[in-house]
Formats: sequence, structure tokens, C-alpha cells
Amino acid sequence: MINIGDTFEHSFSFTQEDVVLFAKVTGDNNPVHLDEVYAANTIFKRPIIHGMLGATVFSKVFGTMFPGEGTIYLNQNLQFLRPMLVDTNYIAQFEVIEIDREKHRATITTIVLNEEGKKVVDGSAILMHSEKF
Amino acid sequence: MINIGDTFEHSFSFTQEDVVLFAKVTGDNNPVHLDEVYAANTIFKRPIIHGMLGATVFSKVFGTMFPGEGTIYLNQNLQFLRPMLVDTNYIAQFEVIEIDREKHRATITTIVLNEEGKKVVDGSAILMHSEKF
Repeated sequence: MINIGDTFEHSFSFTQEDVVLFAKVTGDNNPVHLDEVYAANTIFKRPIIHGMLGATVFSKVFGTMFPGEGTIYLNQNLQFLRPMLVDTNYIAQFEVIEIDREKHRATITTIVLNEEGKKVVDGSAILMHSEKF
Repeated sequence: MINIGDTFEHSFSFTQEDVVLFAKVTGDNNPVHLDEVYAANTIFKRPIIHGMLGATVFSKVFGTMFPGEGTIYLNQNLQFLRPMLVDTNYIAQFEVIEIDREKHRATITTIVLNEEGKKVVDGSAILMHSEKF
């Protein structure tokens, strides 16, 4: 059983190979993610990870770790605050801030921090889990 | 230049191969997406697409079609209303509902409809584009 105030943390990183595969699967071939020369001429100066690829860490954690198997994803709000880079360590942090035991639903804050502790992604999710909530 | 009230539509579908690749890239190996036998025992009865994979259509359209190259993704809200299935046609619909010309930002509604016209994903995004907004 998961309770209000429970937290979870998960470290992760992506490679340029991940970015290329993600572009292939999703069709999101925006050159800012794939083309070093193009990216050098943007405000980012170098290729950045698709924001949505970065956000998949939330889906991974919810579906496989916390709460894990049986999770139904109802809602996700995302604010992309800073660009994410390949071969860089990030930490996804989660905190349960609301639970509806009758509906087996919880609201969980979802943030990604960089190694300096600055927020890269901010947001929150609503999940359903028939046993954990 | 994109204006308030402008709309865009994009048809898409995903295969089970896409789902397997997405699971590999993201680490989201939730068996409800990958294991037919497991999925048969869930409320969904058959494997469903990762909600986040479905939502990547918004990223694809914004980064490559509307507004296209040069888009900076600031914000995305997602409500997963119905499960999405492989080998099934969906339509992503977009409407510009707010523009801040000084900040070059726009708010755009983002929905996915199934073939019966029912909403599968609902939400909205905030984008920045120095020329289009």
C-alpha cells in the first residue's frame, strides 16, 4: 500500500542512440535532436533530447517500479524547463500528494533534476492502481 | 505566421514493433504493453500502447509539421481517456487558442480521436516559435 507523503527516486540517462531510435519510432525527426550542425545554430548550441523522451522516465517508473505493474496512467502534466542532453545523469523524483482510496487514484508530483539539483522537468501525474492506492 | 483559430490534423498509427522499440528505448517494460497473455487478464483484454507513445504524436507534429522546425516545447498536459491499440488509425487534432506575440508563445489544444470520433487523449500544449507566433 502506498501512502500520502511516500517518495521515490530514480537515476537515468539517455544516449544519442536512444534519441535516434526514439526519433525513428515516433517520427519526430526535428533536427535539433539529431543534427549537430543544425543544433549548433540554435539557442541550445548542441543536440537536445526530445522533451517527450525525457518524460518517458515517468511512464517507466510508474509502469515498472513505483507503483509498478498494474498501474493505469490517467493524467500527466509536463513543463519542459531546461533542455536535456545525452550522456548526462538525471534524477526523477516522485512524491504522492493525494490519494482517493475509493477510486484507487493518486496524484504524484513528477520532477526531473539535473546534477546541479536544478529542475529540468516539472509536473504531476494521476494514476490508478487497484491494490496500491 | 500562425493565428488564433488555426487548426491542424494528422492521421497516425503504431505497430507492435513500434511498441517493442519504445519499450526498449524508454525502459518501460510494463507487460500490459508487451505480453498478450498478461494483457488478456487485465481490464484491457489485449496489449495497449504506452500512453506516452501515443502522446509522442504531438511532439512529432509540433517539431516537424505544425508549426514545424524551430519549435520549442514548453508545456504539455495529457489526459489518457481511453486505451490506444496497435494497427489502429487515430487522428491528432490541434487548435491554436491563445498567442502571445511578444513572447512568441502559443497555447494549442491537443487531442487524439479514434475512428468513431471518440476522444482517446485530451490535453493542451504551450510552444514557443520565434517566427510562427
